[in-house]
Amino acid sequence: MKLTILKDSLNEAIQHVSKAISSRTTIPILSGIKMEARSTGLTLTASDTDISIQSFIPMEKNDKTIITLDKPGSVVLPAKFFVEIIRKLPSAHVELFVQDQFHTTIKSGASEIQLVGLDPEEYPILPQLEEDRIFSMNGILLKSMIRQTVFAVSTNESTPILTGVLWNLENGIIKFVGTDRHRLASSEATINSTNNLKIENLVVSGKTLNELSKIIPDNGMMIDIVATENQILFKMDNVLFYSRILDGTYPDTSKIISQAFKTELVVNTKGITEAIDRAYILSREEKTNIVKLVTTGDQSVEISSSSNELGKVKEQIEAEQLEGDELRISFNSKYMLDALKVIDSENIHIGFAGIMSPIIIRPVDETRKMLHLILPYRTTN
Amino acid sequence: MKLTILKDSLNEAIQHVSKAISSRTTIPILSGIKMEARSTGLTLTASDTDISIQSFIPMEKNDKTIITLDKPGSVVLPAKFFVEIIRKLPSAHVELFVQDQFHTTIKSGASEIQLVGLDPEEYPILPQLEEDRIFSMNGILLKSMIRQTVFAVSTNESTPILTGVLWNLENGIIKFVGTDRHRLASSEATINSTNNLKIENLVVSGKTLNELSKIIPDNGMMIDIVATENQILFKMDNVLFYSRILDGTYPDTSKIISQAFKTELVVNTKGITEAIDRAYILSREEKTNIVKLVTTGDQSVEISSSSNELGKVKEQIEAEQLEGDELRISFNSKYMLDALKVIDSENIHIGFAGIMSPIIIRPVDETRKMLHLILPYRTTN
Repeated sequence: MKLTILKDSLNEAIQHVSKAISSRTTIPILSGIKMEARSTGLTLTASDTDISIQSFIPMEKNDKTIITLDKPGSVVLPAKFFVEIIRKLPSAHVELFVQDQFHTTIKSGASEIQLVGLDPEEYPILPQLEEDRIFSMNGILLKSMIRQTVFAVSTNESTPILTGVLWNLENGIIKFVGTDRHRLASSEATINSTNNLKIENLVVSGKTLNELSKIIPDNGMMIDIVATENQILFKMDNVLFYSRILDGTYPDTSKIISQAFKTELVVNTKGITEAIDRAYILSREEKTNIVKLVTTGDQSVEISSSSNELGKVKEQIEAEQLEGDELRISFNSKYMLDALKVIDSENIHIGFAGIMSPIIIRPVDETRKMLHLILPYRTTN
Repeated sequence: MKLTILKDSLNEAIQHVSKAISSRTTIPILSGIKMEARSTGLTLTASDTDISIQSFIPMEKNDKTIITLDKPGSVVLPAKFFVEIIRKLPSAHVELFVQDQFHTTIKSGASEIQLVGLDPEEYPILPQLEEDRIFSMNGILLKSMIRQTVFAVSTNESTPILTGVLWNLENGIIKFVGTDRHRLASSEATINSTNNLKIENLVVSGKTLNELSKIIPDNGMMIDIVATENQILFKMDNVLFYSRILDGTYPDTSKIISQAFKTELVVNTKGITEAIDRAYILSREEKTNIVKLVTTGDQSVEISSSSNELGKVKEQIEAEQLEGDELRISFNSKYMLDALKVIDSENIHIGFAGIMSPIIIRPVDETRKMLHLILPYRTTN
């Protein structure tokens, strides 16, 4: 393999695939990035067995030469060092030359680097996916639905299925759900699905979705998504992102979402977020995060928290609407703030079905359907 | 104590004094900020016994009312919570009201906070310093001299004196020295000293100087510096910064700085910095940071590093000037980069007095006198 490539193009592709490199891999070849040069361009691959990312650099783009290929071939280069050194090379052009035993020379300006490469034949082959179950989503929508749900997934590896986000697709409506048994976040949207595809019980790891989010460009491009029994593949412009699907059956969460509320509150999102944030600062010192919400009879609610050592924070907020029974409820303010932060609507609707029933939070100006659920705390006062 | 104060002014003063709060204090009262309201204004004090910071907020500034005082008095409030809650209050005005038992009420907008305060009588009294040994420095100069020397101090607490920067003042020339026995950084400047003050063996903790740097404003104001036997005091606009001086005698470093060089190199600062940085990336993987510099006979030097596992990085750099013996020397590239980063001069002069003698680095365009010293490594090749 011998070629000259624009540093910025190589660097961009390396940044993409390196998201799949794990620093804790036990398989030596996976600490490297595989490079494969053919007459059509250069393909980079990285994998940690759960996630695999492939980035393709074409020979030219918009009539501008990116790669000059002298000899096709392939090699695996140590990722950590390779990522850093390419970024810091002195010239806009980089020459890569693989010799015997995969010894690789990188030249750029006056800088010359010798690298001990590995045999690309030892690199695992990426799965070949059947593309019959495929649909498309706008990248901005996908990113925003990930952001609205992924924070609620469990970090506890003892129930692996809950560390993922559940995907459902039916009648052109895609829905994401994340839950850790104490709170739940869901978001749904209508997509153009020509083939009337139905997807059930597809669970993608939250970590994977966070890495995917970093790669999705903000230009609104459509992303093709291929779902198979074990794998999901995201196809972006020149980037393929493969992920394993989590094993197991996702719990049925539909039953816990009550629609019959005893108390309903509509309130300004920013106002209640800031009030809860102030109460949270104090409750955090107690390591409980407990914040109380009490109706005060005059179309307003009081948000408060108290600490034996430090003192008390309280604040009255006027409601836009307040209907139903009087209420005195405690909840985890960190969970509430996590949910409020991803709601863009000016006002929110909070529904209470009783002091021990889940609290349901929804945006009022619903451009897209979203729901957050938080289990209240049982407290003594 | 009862007063109303502009939130931004209170917040700024809190940010200043909170630099002195240690999260690991064993003295409960020192986890608080002392507030003292008098007819002239509000004084905030925080201390970790090594550093004490006092910030004064006047009643008004530029004809704008900052404080409306209803009743003078004082209280100590828990720093961590107080710092955060004041920053997040909803209104531009804050009302502080200290009642019985130092119970304090903070009101801002609809937000009301009750705080358990402590008795200000228990708060340690700041030292009263004799101000006969006083001089002035421009804040920008002080900050830059700290930056140029503080990185070189030792982090090893077994030789406490080396964790500080040595200050010397004689004939109107102030000099800072930092060393950890493997490298040394020094910087000096001429200041207007009307009283021909002489200061020797005054050593200020590196950590203290880093905190001080964060408080010094970038507006070029003059800072009055008071030196006593045990304390140093920095007087800024409304802020007093007290620090303990380190005990012990600073080693005499003048003897190790050779002036008789066998090889002298003048080279572009940016060029050699970037080349050493690339070699550093590889050497860091070996956990040695060893980089080699070799003269190549044709008015240029080669910078290189190698790793058994990964490979080799090398680069030839043209010298602006190269005189004297041929040379082959190894050094800690991290130390070299630390020094190069604080040199603003376009070209640097590097003097070598032999492969086991200290390497001396100086800026060529010397607007201010600066010197860096790095001990070379003894290597086998």
